[in-house]
Amino acid sequence: MKVTVCRKESFNAAHRIAHPEWSDEKNQKIFGACANKNYHGHNYTLSLKLSGQVDPETGYVYDMKKLGELVKKYIIEPLDHKNLNLDVPAFKHRIPTTEHLAIYIYEQLRPHIESRYEIKLILEETDKNYVEYPA
Amino acid sequence: MKVTVCRKESFNAAHRIAHPEWSDEKNQKIFGACANKNYHGHNYTLSLKLSGQVDPETGYVYDMKKLGELVKKYIIEPLDHKNLNLDVPAFKHRIPTTEHLAIYIYEQLRPHIESRYEIKLILEETDKNYVEYPA
Amino acid sequence: MKVTVCRKESFNAAHRIAHPEWSDEKNQKIFGACANKNYHGHNYTLSLKLSGQVDPETGYVYDMKKLGELVKKYIIEPLDHKNLNLDVPAFKHRIPTTEHLAIYIYEQLRPHIESRYEIKLILEETDKNYVEYPA
Amino acid sequence: MKVTVCRKESFNAAHRIAHPEWSDEKNQKIFGACANKNYHGHNYTLSLKLSGQVDPETGYVYDMKKLGELVKKYIIEPLDHKNLNLDVPAFKHRIPTTEHLAIYIYEQLRPHIESRYEIKLILEETDKNYVEYPA
Amino acid sequence: MKVTVCRKESFNAAHRIAHPEWSDEKNQKIFGACANKNYHGHNYTLSLKLSGQVDPETGYVYDMKKLGELVKKYIIEPLDHKNLNLDVPAFKHRIPTTEHLAIYIYEQLRPHIESRYEIKLILEETDKNYVEYPA
Amino acid sequence: MKVTVCRKESFNAAHRIAHPEWSDEKNQKIFGACANKNYHGHNYTLSLKLSGQVDPETGYVYDMKKLGELVKKYIIEPLDHKNLNLDVPAFKHRIPTTEHLAIYIYEQLRPHIESRYEIKLILEETDKNYVEYPA
Repeated sequence: MKVTVCRKESFNAAHRIAHPEWSDEKNQKIFGACANKNYHGHNYTLSLKLSGQVDPETGYVYDMKKLGELVKKYIIEPLDHKNLNLDVPAFKHRIPTTEHLAIYIYEQLRPHIESRYEIKLILEETDKNYVEYPA
Repeated sequence: MKVTVCRKESFNAAHRIAHPEWSDEKNQKIFGACANKNYHGHNYTLSLKLSGQVDPETGYVYDMKKLGELVKKYIIEPLDHKNLNLDVPAFKHRIPTTEHLAIYIYEQLRPHIESRYEIKLILEETDKNYVEYPA
Repeated sequence: MKVTVCRKESFNAAHRIAHPEWSDEKNQKIFGACANKNYHGHNYTLSLKLSGQVDPETGYVYDMKKLGELVKKYIIEPLDHKNLNLDVPAFKHRIPTTEHLAIYIYEQLRPHIESRYEIKLILEETDKNYVEYPA
Repeated sequence: MKVTVCRKESFNAAHRIAHPEWSDEKNQKIFGACANKNYHGHNYTLSLKLSGQVDPETGYVYDMKKLGELVKKYIIEPLDHKNLNLDVPAFKHRIPTTEHLAIYIYEQLRPHIESRYEIKLILEETDKNYVEYPA
Repeated sequence: MKVTVCRKESFNAAHRIAHPEWSDEKNQKIFGACANKNYHGHNYTLSLKLSGQVDPETGYVYDMKKLGELVKKYIIEPLDHKNLNLDVPAFKHRIPTTEHLAIYIYEQLRPHIESRYEIKLILEETDKNYVEYPA
Repeated sequence: MKVTVCRKESFNAAHRIAHPEWSDEKNQKIFGACANKNYHGHNYTLSLKLSGQVDPETGYVYDMKKLGELVKKYIIEPLDHKNLNLDVPAFKHRIPTTEHLAIYIYEQLRPHIESRYEIKLILEETDKNYVEYPA
């Protein structure tokens, strides 16, 4: 009776995709407009998936209200309406690509959710681009 | 040449999330507004996924018209425009959470689809919450 | 410099479409499955539109945070996770069709928003059916 | 035989909602997280609507390929992957609210589209907030 | 108490955008890939909007079941899974642009809906292009 | 650090689902309206998923601009605004079902993407029907 439950949340942020040790020319060549120096931004949509046994008493795999509070505390508050490069310490030395952002979100949440739950997340950067982690 | 084919259908229903042996206070504490005694409701979206070999003659994994008829007969007719707690016998003694509803839908359809097909379903309760079964 | 600003919010509720003075047979004939006696339900999506002049200082037509608080207080709290027929006094003697619900929402909000704003709303009951009020 | 034709395009940008002559405290009080000093960002969706007579020869109100090129040249290129406050001269002294951005887009396009066409646009900043101009 | 009620339906069809009296070269120049001689196709989404008084007895502007039947009979059956150029007599001598198709749909439905209802429709050809008629 | 990156693209095409060696009657019986002889069509949405290690320098699993160019060259150009049965050699003797089309797209792209990437794709034919390959 293992079920996967999923919760979608949104946040928006500015970022710039550029390697801090590369020249502007190289960054522009590799990352194109994503490297523009004054930042651009996105509405991110996060789908958080937890797989686990259904609790026989409540019929829930996980209390969605509790999950919502964890996401709010560890993800939305530090990321929403922020500049990922400037405001989030983890991205001082790590390029804030969607891949890195998904791994970061996973690492922030994993310690706060019991290990018996398998976690997977989908992070949409635009209507055309999204990532899944772990693969 | 194994392909997964998916079909989306919708239905809407009323329900109440409450343990029949718990007090109103306890139900309200655990389930919040979902336990409100006069029911609330949702537009559910069901995505039914069948994985199997492509038939070399038709190019189909499964006849979608036949699948649509099975879903109509075993899922839409008994659930659509119904009160899950009062009108669906399976939920007389089983809380109609999305998890339980997904398992119920799977159990209703599984006997009518040949065992060579793997079945998986996604059940969306709102734009923010959905479940997948089996996990 | 008149701009229309729009805000989308969601709530879900149970209801039954039936005339209190008609027989079950007549209600079933006129309203079909919508008249089922134990209620069914929907995820409603409300788009609230305010037309007005842009404030030259803030660049806003209306403070969306304030609008969100009004919608929460006068619409979401009385309707969300409720049974429209049983829990909302206005629908004791008024069939809770989407048309009536849209007019009700308009009447609840209109007194709390300055008359210099024109108000229009879109209320979606399902992915296929929605209403606009005023027409 | 007047028809409205609509074209949807997307771009993303960073911005900050803050009055240049107000203190940080006042900006934070009026604009909340939108005033965060390091910017945040959005995926904007623009729907451009042109109303006019159907050309009896082509069956078109307007050549969508030509409209796409105008939008690309006058809207997407100057705004996409940009910081509205820093990179777009019009917003040096004008707060880049969605209202102002919609008026700006209208003013950029209007001179390039024959006056016999009525223009209206919808600009979505997030899934929950959008504006229409002219109202 | 005038409300607009809206109903969304879908159909799909093949078509080719080409003037029957123009050369292939001219059609290709004016219409691009839309003029390809072996046809291409779309999933069309039709939103039909009726504005009228709310019936004080039923709370309905129009019986959606009856509207669904009219749309099925006069629009879906003649257009769905068809080639607009070859299978629909009205497009033998009229280029099946979205503009013309919207006018055609309006003309098919208007005689079957009482004149006290104002009718307006939205016809989406792709996620990026749609038309409204009347403008 | 294995992440799945996904890219969505669209194209539209005409097709007919019919076995070339069957009678019209048999095709109509097995495939219904999909066998109509003058073709119909769809807006297809392709989600291409690549799973692989995150490049420690760029923070990318795969350069999305390069992926976009591959999809444009090998998928969009040969399929968009085409008749699958008549214009695409692979479907001269293979029924263009969504299953077959998904396998075809996979086979076209696989040789151009390094084997260390796992590829999976989702192909949507309508809002209700889609396939995943490999299953």
